[in-house]
Amino acid sequence: MKKSQKVAFQGELGAFSQVAALQMAGSAMEPIPFQTFEEAFRSVVNGKTQAAAIPIENTLHGSVHENYDHLLKYGLEIHGETFVRIVHNLIAPPDVKLREISTVYSHPVALNQCRTFFEQNPQITKTPFYDTAGSVKMLMEKRLPASAAIASATAAEIYGAKILKRSIEDDRENFTRFFLLKKPAAGKRAAKLPAVQRWKTSIAFTIKNAPGGLFRSLSAFSLRDINLTKIESRPLRGKPWEYMFYLDFHGHLTDPVIGKAMGHLAELTDALHVFGSYPAAA
Amino acid sequence: MKKSQKVAFQGELGAFSQVAALQMAGSAMEPIPFQTFEEAFRSVVNGKTQAAAIPIENTLHGSVHENYDHLLKYGLEIHGETFVRIVHNLIAPPDVKLREISTVYSHPVALNQCRTFFEQNPQITKTPFYDTAGSVKMLMEKRLPASAAIASATAAEIYGAKILKRSIEDDRENFTRFFLLKKPAAGKRAAKLPAVQRWKTSIAFTIKNAPGGLFRSLSAFSLRDINLTKIESRPLRGKPWEYMFYLDFHGHLTDPVIGKAMGHLAELTDALHVFGSYPAAA
Repeated sequence: MKKSQKVAFQGELGAFSQVAALQMAGSAMEPIPFQTFEEAFRSVVNGKTQAAAIPIENTLHGSVHENYDHLLKYGLEIHGETFVRIVHNLIAPPDVKLREISTVYSHPVALNQCRTFFEQNPQITKTPFYDTAGSVKMLMEKRLPASAAIASATAAEIYGAKILKRSIEDDRENFTRFFLLKKPAAGKRAAKLPAVQRWKTSIAFTIKNAPGGLFRSLSAFSLRDINLTKIESRPLRGKPWEYMFYLDFHGHLTDPVIGKAMGHLAELTDALHVFGSYPAAA
Repeated sequence: MKKSQKVAFQGELGAFSQVAALQMAGSAMEPIPFQTFEEAFRSVVNGKTQAAAIPIENTLHGSVHENYDHLLKYGLEIHGETFVRIVHNLIAPPDVKLREISTVYSHPVALNQCRTFFEQNPQITKTPFYDTAGSVKMLMEKRLPASAAIASATAAEIYGAKILKRSIEDDRENFTRFFLLKKPAAGKRAAKLPAVQRWKTSIAFTIKNAPGGLFRSLSAFSLRDINLTKIESRPLRGKPWEYMFYLDFHGHLTDPVIGKAMGHLAELTDALHVFGSYPAAA
């Protein structure tokens, strides 16, 4: 039996990142919370954890550029992806009743994503707190009267609290995409890829400004009928007219066609970073 | 003399959006705060305000997809852009001294962006609050002892508070890009464009999935040497394999070359939305 894998994530136990870690690394993994994304990346580099579950984009808030920066800086490899629907639940200690609640604690972003609930319950005061899961932890420790928190169902479970009302978020189309990141396996390459429905590969590259530079770069894919699933440009600070591009596409780096596209792309770009190939989330 | 223009923004008076409004609409404008982005958009549609200053992307956090959604829904036109560097200042009522401070209030995102300051001042407790500028307003109203806030210099000025320490943010490369949005002027077109250094145009379009569909769409620009400054894809929820693309490029919609590119692009896309042409920020 393999020793249980430690998976780093940012936030308190019960954060949505822990839900993502569970989806990607399975229930045998041990979730290890860190205060910042950078600390989670470093823990993998230092070998304190074997993997990190890191949010990379959200359907309402866009890409998390900070985590692309850490990916480039720390050179971790993508081993998996998953999507977590952001479901906000009203959570309280087991003895607290819904009709008693007069104060609700959570992260301001979560409070603002449950506006309809607060409009329907004007007797309830919203109180900002650091973290969604952390607000459940605090209520279970302090047992404040007439108080509840907004967080994931996982947070309720971990801290032994009760869900008073499920799914009180305004927008059900709020999804976050996560990567499972690991240290690159030096020189090790599996003889045969596991059978998965579909592989995806993520890369980043820079091109010097020239009208049509991006167009030429994309020809490496379009000429080979490779399907792009994400493209995003980001201006490079301090380097006017230079851009970093993030690209995701279908296929594995060991596919001969993908290999040829990467060779072609390397001719057309200034710097090319390959983050890895991984099974596409369903 | 023109009557002073009302400019909507999200947040409390003194928010970074108000700084952006000032940069784009000048000091004669009257800033009107709203709780949500959507309320700010609606106020322009309803004629309660003449313009809105809306964040569209940030160098650390990426594009604000929510505001692209509102742009598409409410059909406002982009009239200007600006960049605001996110500078966090330690702010307190005038009689409070730096060495007395034991509690600092601000939005959790701002508190987390000043980690070095808190590491150097371990005697200070971080307390989450709804809004950066709102925390200054609260301190000036309640005069809590030994307390300070983290917010913009504009917030200190508006509420008559004092800056105890300037620029305590960890990352100086934290910029937010804002648009100035107005109702489209029905049928009205200026005979001659004002002379500006450079025009920029923002559009969005959808294409049905076909490997190379994006490549073909970009040919409308690359074949005419039009310079792209932003490209971003966003999967359309509930429509697998369909994407929305955001594109910014140099030039004005009334340029003959841009007009031809738009005609060409319309042939290659499913839906094409034009958000407007505006003077590029320096």
